Amino acid sequence: MLNSNDGATPESNASSNHADRLAPAEEEVHLVPPLNFAMVETGIFRSGFPESKNFSFLQTLGLRSVICLCPEDYPKTTMEFLRSNGIELYQFGVEGYEEPFVNIPDDTIRDAMKVILDPRNRPVLIHCKRGKHRTGCLVGCLRKLQRWCLPSVFDEYQRFVAAKALVSNQSTGHRKTMDDQKPVVP
Amino acid sequence: MLNSNDGATPESNASSNHADRLAPAEEEVHLVPPLNFAMVETGIFRSGFPESKNFSFLQTLGLRSVICLCPEDYPKTTMEFLRSNGIELYQFGVEGYEEPFVNIPDDTIRDAMKVILDPRNRPVLIHCKRGKHRTGCLVGCLRKLQRWCLPSVFDEYQRFVAAKALVSNQSTGHRKTMDDQKPVVP
Repeated sequence: MLNSNDGATPESNASSNHADRLAPAEEEVHLVPPLNFAMVETGIFRSGFPESKNFSFLQTLGLRSVICLCPEDYPKTTMEFLRSNGIELYQFGVEGYEEPFVNIPDDTIRDAMKVILDPRNRPVLIHCKRGKHRTGCLVGCLRKLQRWCLPSVFDEYQRFVAAKALVSNQSTGHRKTMDDQKPVVP
Repeated sequence: MLNSNDGATPESNASSNHADRLAPAEEEVHLVPPLNFAMVETGIFRSGFPESKNFSFLQTLGLRSVICLCPEDYPKTTMEFLRSNGIELYQFGVEGYEEPFVNIPDDTIRDAMKVILDPRNRPVLIHCKRGKHRTGCLVGCLRKLQRWCLPSVFDEYQRFVAAKALVSNQSTGHRKTMDDQKPVVP
Protein backbone atom coordinates (compact mmCIF):
# COMPACT_ATOMS: atom_id res chain seq x y z
CA MET A 1 0.00 0.00 0.00
CA LEU A 2 1.36 3.40 -0.90
CA ASN A 3 0.60 5.18 2.31
CA SER A 4 1.68 2.53 4.78
CA ASN A 5 4.21 5.04 6.08
CA ASP A 6 1.92 5.78 9.00
CA GLY A 7 2.36 5.73 12.73
CA ALA A 8 1.73 9.33 13.65
CA THR A 9 -1.99 9.47 12.92
CA PRO A 10 -4.63 7.24 14.45
CA GLU A 11 -6.69 5.97 11.55
CA SER A 12 -10.48 6.19 11.70
CA ASN A 13 -13.01 4.42 9.50
CA ALA A 14 -13.06 7.44 7.25
CA SER A 15 -9.32 7.57 6.82
CA SER A 16 -9.11 3.82 6.21
CA ASN A 17 -11.51 4.30 3.33
CA HIS A 18 -9.33 7.15 2.24
CA ALA A 19 -6.22 4.98 2.41
CA ASP A 20 -7.95 2.35 0.30
CA ARG A 21 -8.75 4.97 -2.28
CA LEU A 22 -5.08 5.93 -2.43
CA ALA A 23 -3.95 2.36 -3.00
CA PRO A 24 -2.24 1.61 -6.31
CA ALA A 25 -3.94 -0.36 -9.05
CA GLU A 26 -3.36 -4.04 -8.41
CA GLU A 27 -5.09 -4.79 -11.64
CA GLU A 28 -5.70 -2.15 -14.28
CA VAL A 29 -9.38 -1.48 -13.53
CA HIS A 30 -10.52 2.06 -14.12
CA LEU A 31 -13.10 3.51 -11.81
CA VAL A 32 -15.75 5.81 -13.24
CA PRO A 33 -17.02 8.46 -10.81
CA PRO A 34 -20.51 9.80 -11.55
CA LEU A 35 -20.86 12.98 -13.61
CA ASN A 36 -19.68 16.07 -11.73
CA PHE A 37 -18.49 14.02 -8.78
CA ALA A 38 -16.69 15.83 -5.97
CA MET A 39 -16.00 15.64 -2.25
CA VAL A 40 -17.78 18.39 -0.35
CA GLU A 41 -16.52 17.54 3.13
CA THR A 42 -15.22 14.48 4.93
CA GLY A 43 -18.01 11.96 4.40
CA ILE A 44 -20.10 14.22 2.15
CA PHE A 45 -19.99 13.79 -1.64
CA ARG A 46 -21.91 15.34 -4.55
CA SER A 47 -22.59 14.25 -8.12
CA GLY A 48 -24.99 13.89 -11.01
CA PHE A 49 -27.29 10.88 -11.39
CA PRO A 50 -25.38 7.66 -10.61
CA GLU A 51 -25.41 5.04 -13.36
CA SER A 52 -24.50 1.37 -13.27
CA LYS A 53 -21.03 2.11 -14.69
CA ASN A 54 -20.37 4.11 -11.50
CA PHE A 55 -21.18 1.32 -9.04
CA SER A 56 -17.58 0.07 -8.60
CA PHE A 57 -16.42 3.59 -7.85
CA LEU A 58 -19.28 4.25 -5.45
CA GLN A 59 -18.41 1.11 -3.53
CA THR A 60 -15.01 2.62 -2.68
CA LEU A 61 -16.77 5.45 -0.81
CA GLY A 62 -18.38 3.12 1.75
CA LEU A 63 -21.62 5.09 1.54
CA ARG A 64 -24.24 4.80 4.28
CA SER A 65 -26.84 6.89 2.50
CA VAL A 66 -27.78 8.71 -0.67
CA ILE A 67 -29.81 11.92 -0.93
CA CYS A 68 -31.61 11.96 -4.27
CA LEU A 69 -33.04 15.35 -5.22
CA CYS A 70 -34.85 14.04 -8.34
CA PRO A 71 -38.52 13.02 -8.32
CA GLU A 72 -37.94 10.08 -10.69
CA ASP A 73 -37.73 6.51 -9.41
CA TYR A 74 -34.37 4.77 -9.57
CA PRO A 75 -33.91 1.95 -12.10
CA LYS A 76 -34.16 -1.55 -10.61
CA THR A 77 -30.38 -2.10 -10.89
CA THR A 78 -29.68 1.01 -8.80
CA MET A 79 -32.20 -0.02 -6.13
CA GLU A 80 -30.52 -3.44 -6.03
CA PHE A 81 -27.07 -1.80 -5.72
CA LEU A 82 -28.25 0.26 -2.74
CA ARG A 83 -29.89 -2.74 -1.09
CA SER A 84 -26.92 -5.06 -1.49
CA ASN A 85 -24.52 -2.40 -0.15
CA GLY A 86 -26.73 -1.44 2.80
CA ILE A 87 -27.16 2.13 1.56
CA GLU A 88 -30.20 4.07 2.79
CA LEU A 89 -32.03 6.17 0.19
CA TYR A 90 -33.47 9.57 1.14
CA GLN A 91 -35.44 10.96 -1.77
CA PHE A 92 -36.50 14.59 -1.85
CA GLY A 93 -38.07 15.03 -5.25
CA VAL A 94 -37.41 18.50 -6.58
CA GLU A 95 -38.36 19.28 -10.17
CA GLY A 96 -35.42 20.31 -12.35
CA TYR A 97 -35.88 23.47 -14.35
CA GLU A 98 -33.74 25.36 -16.76
CA GLU A 99 -33.33 29.04 -15.96
CA PRO A 100 -35.22 30.94 -14.65
CA PHE A 101 -35.05 28.67 -11.63
CA VAL A 102 -37.85 28.13 -9.18
CA ASN A 103 -36.92 28.10 -5.54
CA ILE A 104 -36.46 24.77 -3.84
CA PRO A 105 -39.02 24.66 -1.01
CA ASP A 106 -37.50 25.59 2.38
CA ASP A 107 -38.88 22.41 3.96
CA THR A 108 -37.11 20.23 1.42
CA ILE A 109 -33.77 21.93 2.04
CA ARG A 110 -34.33 21.69 5.77
CA ASP A 111 -35.21 17.97 5.65
CA ALA A 112 -32.28 17.14 3.38
CA MET A 113 -29.95 19.13 5.64
CA LYS A 114 -31.07 17.12 8.66
CA VAL A 115 -30.00 13.95 6.86
CA ILE A 116 -26.57 15.42 6.01
CA LEU A 117 -25.95 16.76 9.51
CA ASP A 118 -26.66 13.45 11.24
CA PRO A 119 -23.27 11.70 11.30
CA ARG A 120 -25.01 8.32 11.34
CA ASN A 121 -25.94 8.95 7.70
CA ARG A 122 -22.39 9.65 6.55
CA PRO A 123 -20.65 8.94 4.24
CA VAL A 124 -23.51 10.40 2.17
CA LEU A 125 -23.81 11.17 -1.55
CA ILE A 126 -26.01 14.11 -2.57
CA HIS A 127 -27.11 14.02 -6.19
CA CYS A 128 -29.62 15.33 -8.72
CA LYS A 129 -29.67 14.82 -12.48
CA ARG A 130 -26.49 16.65 -13.50
CA GLY A 131 -25.06 17.57 -10.08
CA LYS A 132 -25.44 21.26 -10.81
CA HIS A 133 -28.42 23.32 -9.63
CA ARG A 134 -30.36 21.25 -7.10
CA THR A 135 -27.25 19.67 -5.60
CA GLY A 136 -25.41 22.98 -5.74
CA CYS A 137 -28.20 24.72 -3.89
CA LEU A 138 -28.11 22.21 -1.04
CA VAL A 139 -24.31 22.33 -0.86
CA GLY A 140 -24.51 26.14 -0.86
CA CYS A 141 -26.75 26.00 2.20
CA LEU A 142 -24.26 23.71 3.91
CA ARG A 143 -21.48 26.20 3.15
CA LYS A 144 -23.54 28.94 4.77
CA LEU A 145 -23.77 26.83 7.93
CA GLN A 146 -20.00 26.52 7.70
CA ARG A 147 -19.85 30.33 7.65
CA TRP A 148 -18.35 30.59 4.14
CA CYS A 149 -18.69 34.10 2.75
CA LEU A 150 -21.28 34.29 -0.04
CA PRO A 151 -18.90 35.05 -2.94
CA SER A 152 -17.04 31.79 -2.18
CA VAL A 153 -20.34 29.91 -1.94
CA PHE A 154 -21.34 31.23 -5.37
CA ASP A 155 -17.92 30.52 -6.86
CA GLU A 156 -18.24 26.88 -5.87
CA TYR A 157 -21.83 26.75 -7.13
CA GLN A 158 -20.77 28.25 -10.45
CA ARG A 159 -17.86 25.86 -10.88
CA PHE A 160 -20.29 22.96 -11.24
CA VAL A 161 -22.91 24.85 -13.23
CA ALA A 162 -20.31 25.80 -15.82
CA ALA A 163 -18.85 22.27 -15.99
CA LYS A 164 -18.77 20.66 -19.39
CA ALA A 165 -18.64 16.87 -19.27
CA LEU A 166 -16.11 14.67 -21.05
CA VAL A 167 -13.77 17.37 -22.19
CA SER A 168 -11.46 15.97 -24.83
CA ASN A 169 -9.44 18.98 -25.96
CA GLN A 170 -7.14 19.35 -22.96
CA SER A 171 -3.60 20.52 -23.44
CA THR A 172 -1.51 17.67 -24.78
CA GLY A 173 1.25 18.57 -22.34
CA HIS A 174 -0.98 18.18 -19.30
CA ARG A 175 -2.62 15.01 -20.62
CA LYS A 176 0.82 13.57 -21.13
CA THR A 177 2.04 14.44 -17.63
CA MET A 178 -0.98 12.76 -16.04
CA ASP A 179 -0.91 9.87 -18.44
CA ASP A 180 2.73 9.12 -17.70
CA GLN A 181 2.24 8.79 -13.94
CA LYS A 182 3.32 5.51 -12.49
CA PRO A 183 2.63 4.67 -8.83
CA VAL A 184 5.11 6.51 -6.62
CA VAL A 185 6.79 4.55 -3.88
CA PRO A 186 7.94 7.01 -1.20
CA MET B 1 -23.40 21.93 18.04
CA LEU B 2 -25.52 20.85 15.10
CA ASN B 3 -24.18 17.38 14.71
CA SER B 4 -24.08 16.32 18.33
CA ASN B 5 -26.55 13.57 17.40
CA ASP B 6 -23.71 11.09 17.33
CA GLY B 7 -23.05 7.82 19.05
CA ALA B 8 -22.82 5.44 16.13
CA THR B 9 -19.51 6.63 14.72
CA PRO B 10 -16.23 6.85 16.58
CA GLU B 11 -14.89 10.31 15.89
CA SER B 12 -11.31 10.69 14.67
CA ASN B 13 -9.20 13.83 14.54
CA ALA B 14 -10.31 14.34 10.98
CA SER B 15 -13.99 14.02 11.72
CA SER B 16 -13.69 16.27 14.76
CA ASN B 17 -12.30 18.94 12.48
CA HIS B 18 -15.14 18.20 10.16
CA ALA B 19 -17.66 18.52 12.98
CA ASP B 20 -16.18 21.89 13.88
CA ARG B 21 -16.58 23.03 10.30
CA LEU B 22 -20.26 22.06 10.45
CA ALA B 23 -20.85 24.02 13.64
CA PRO B 24 -23.26 26.95 13.42
CA ALA B 25 -22.12 30.54 13.52
CA GLU B 26 -21.89 31.60 17.14
CA GLU B 27 -21.02 35.05 15.99
CA GLU B 28 -21.59 36.25 12.45
CA VAL B 29 -18.02 35.94 11.19
CA HIS B 30 -17.69 34.99 7.54
CA LEU B 31 -14.86 32.73 6.53
CA VAL B 32 -13.14 33.38 3.23
CA PRO B 33 -11.71 30.25 1.57
CA PRO B 34 -8.85 30.87 -0.87
CA LEU B 35 -9.62 31.23 -4.57
CA ASN B 36 -10.76 27.95 -6.16
CA PHE B 37 -10.71 26.14 -2.83
CA ALA B 38 -11.96 22.55 -2.76
CA MET B 39 -11.54 19.30 -0.88
CA VAL B 40 -9.79 16.66 -2.96
CA GLU B 41 -9.88 13.82 -0.45
CA THR B 42 -10.09 13.45 3.31
CA GLY B 43 -7.16 15.57 4.50
CA ILE B 44 -6.20 16.84 1.02
CA PHE B 45 -7.27 20.30 -0.12
CA ARG B 46 -6.53 22.44 -3.19
CA SER B 47 -6.70 26.16 -3.90
CA GLY B 48 -5.17 29.25 -5.44
CA PHE B 49 -2.60 31.38 -3.62
CA PRO B 50 -3.63 31.87 0.02
CA GLU B 51 -3.91 35.48 1.17
CA SER B 52 -4.13 36.95 4.65
CA LYS B 53 -7.92 37.24 4.39
CA ASN B 54 -8.00 33.43 4.13
CA PHE B 55 -6.09 32.74 7.36
CA SER B 56 -9.16 32.32 9.61
CA PHE B 57 -10.65 29.82 7.18
CA LEU B 58 -7.38 27.93 6.80
CA GLN B 59 -7.14 27.58 10.58
CA THR B 60 -10.38 25.55 10.54
CA LEU B 61 -8.67 22.91 8.36
CA GLY B 62 -6.05 22.06 10.99
CA LEU B 63 -3.36 21.87 8.29
CA ARG B 64 -0.08 20.09 8.95
CA SER B 65 1.51 21.09 5.67
CA VAL B 66 1.23 23.16 2.52
CA ILE B 67 2.53 22.24 -0.94
CA CYS B 68 3.29 25.43 -2.84
CA LEU B 69 3.80 24.93 -6.57
CA CYS B 70 4.86 28.54 -7.22
CA PRO B 71 8.51 29.62 -7.35
CA GLU B 72 7.81 32.97 -5.60
CA ASP B 73 8.58 33.48 -1.91
CA TYR B 74 5.64 33.85 0.47
CA PRO B 75 4.99 37.25 2.01
CA LYS B 76 6.22 37.64 5.60
CA THR B 77 2.68 37.49 7.01
CA THR B 78 2.07 34.11 5.36
CA MET B 79 5.35 32.70 6.65
CA GLU B 80 4.40 33.92 10.13
CA PHE B 81 0.94 32.31 9.79
CA LEU B 82 2.53 28.95 8.89
CA ARG B 83 5.04 29.20 11.72
CA SER B 84 2.52 30.11 14.41
CA ASN B 85 0.18 27.30 13.30
CA GLY B 86 2.92 24.67 13.05
CA ILE B 87 2.36 24.18 9.32
CA GLU B 88 5.25 22.73 7.30
CA LEU B 89 5.90 24.33 3.90
CA TYR B 90 6.95 22.16 0.95
CA GLN B 91 7.80 24.38 -2.00
CA PHE B 92 8.14 22.93 -5.49
CA GLY B 93 8.61 25.95 -7.70
CA VAL B 94 7.01 25.37 -11.09
CA GLU B 95 6.81 28.28 -13.50
CA GLY B 96 3.25 29.22 -14.47
CA TYR B 97 2.58 29.57 -18.18
CA GLU B 98 -0.41 30.44 -20.22
CA GLU B 99 -1.20 27.95 -22.99
CA PRO B 100 0.67 26.29 -24.62
CA PHE B 101 1.67 24.64 -21.35
CA VAL B 102 5.07 23.22 -20.61
CA ASN B 103 5.19 19.92 -18.84
CA ILE B 104 5.80 19.91 -15.14
CA PRO B 105 9.03 17.93 -14.58
CA ASP B 106 8.37 14.31 -13.57
CA ASP B 107 10.65 14.63 -10.55
CA THR B 108 8.66 17.57 -9.20
CA ILE B 109 5.39 15.67 -9.52
CA ARG B 110 6.98 12.64 -7.92
CA ASP B 111 8.42 14.62 -4.98
CA ALA B 112 5.15 16.49 -4.38
CA MET B 113 3.23 13.21 -4.53
CA LYS B 114 5.48 11.70 -1.87
CA VAL B 115 4.52 14.56 0.46
CA ILE B 116 0.79 14.03 -0.21
CA LEU B 117 0.94 10.27 0.22
CA ASP B 118 2.65 10.41 3.61
CA PRO B 119 -0.25 10.61 6.09
CA ARG B 120 1.99 12.44 8.58
CA ASN B 121 1.76 15.47 6.27
CA ARG B 122 -2.04 15.54 6.15
CA PRO B 123 -4.20 17.56 6.31
CA VAL B 124 -2.33 19.18 3.41
CA LEU B 125 -3.20 22.10 1.13
CA ILE B 126 -1.90 22.00 -2.46
CA HIS B 127 -1.84 25.36 -4.18
CA CYS B 128 -0.40 27.38 -7.03
CA LYS B 129 -1.30 30.91 -8.16
CA ARG B 130 -4.90 30.39 -9.28
CA GLY B 131 -5.48 26.75 -8.28
CA LYS B 132 -5.95 25.72 -11.89
CA HIS B 133 -3.17 24.25 -14.03
CA ARG B 134 -0.26 23.36 -11.73
CA THR B 135 -2.51 22.25 -8.87
CA GLY B 136 -4.87 20.52 -11.30
CA CYS B 137 -2.02 18.57 -12.82
CA LEU B 138 -0.87 17.25 -9.44
CA VAL B 139 -4.44 16.39 -8.42
CA GLY B 140 -4.90 14.64 -11.78
CA CYS B 141 -1.90 12.43 -11.03
CA LEU B 142 -3.41 11.59 -7.63
CA ARG B 143 -6.67 10.62 -9.35
CA LYS B 144 -4.73 8.30 -11.62
CA LEU B 145 -3.29 6.58 -8.56
CA GLN B 146 -6.86 6.27 -7.33
CA ARG B 147 -7.67 4.53 -10.63
CA TRP B 148 -10.11 7.19 -11.88
CA CYS B 149 -10.76 6.83 -15.61
CA LEU B 150 -9.11 9.61 -17.63
CA PRO B 151 -12.31 11.36 -18.82
CA SER B 152 -13.30 11.90 -15.16
CA VAL B 153 -9.79 13.13 -14.35
CA PHE B 154 -10.02 15.68 -17.18
CA ASP B 155 -13.54 16.71 -16.23
CA GLU B 156 -12.34 17.60 -12.76
CA TYR B 157 -9.27 19.37 -14.16
CA GLN B 158 -11.43 21.37 -16.52
CA ARG B 159 -13.92 22.36 -13.81
CA PHE B 160 -11.22 24.43 -12.11
CA VAL B 161 -9.61 25.73 -15.31
CA ALA B 162 -12.95 27.11 -16.46
CA ALA B 163 -13.77 28.63 -13.07
CA LYS B 164 -14.51 32.35 -13.02
CA ALA B 165 -13.97 33.97 -9.65
CA LEU B 166 -16.45 36.14 -7.76
CA VAL B 167 -19.48 35.48 -9.88
CA SER B 168 -22.16 38.01 -9.10
CA ASN B 169 -24.90 37.23 -11.61
CA GLN B 170 -26.27 34.01 -10.11
CA SER B 171 -29.97 33.30 -10.39
CA THR B 172 -31.80 35.44 -7.86
CA GLY B 173 -33.90 32.43 -6.88
CA HIS B 174 -30.91 30.34 -5.92
CA ARG B 175 -29.17 33.21 -4.17
CA LYS B 176 -32.32 33.75 -2.17
CA THR B 177 -32.65 30.11 -1.14
CA MET B 178 -29.07 30.02 0.12
CA ASP B 179 -29.32 33.47 1.65
CA ASP B 180 -32.41 32.52 3.62
CA GLN B 181 -30.84 29.51 5.31
CA LYS B 182 -30.94 29.59 9.07
CA PRO B 183 -29.13 26.93 11.09
CA VAL B 184 -31.17 23.71 11.07
CA VAL B 185 -31.64 21.98 14.38
CA PRO B 186 -32.39 18.30 13.64
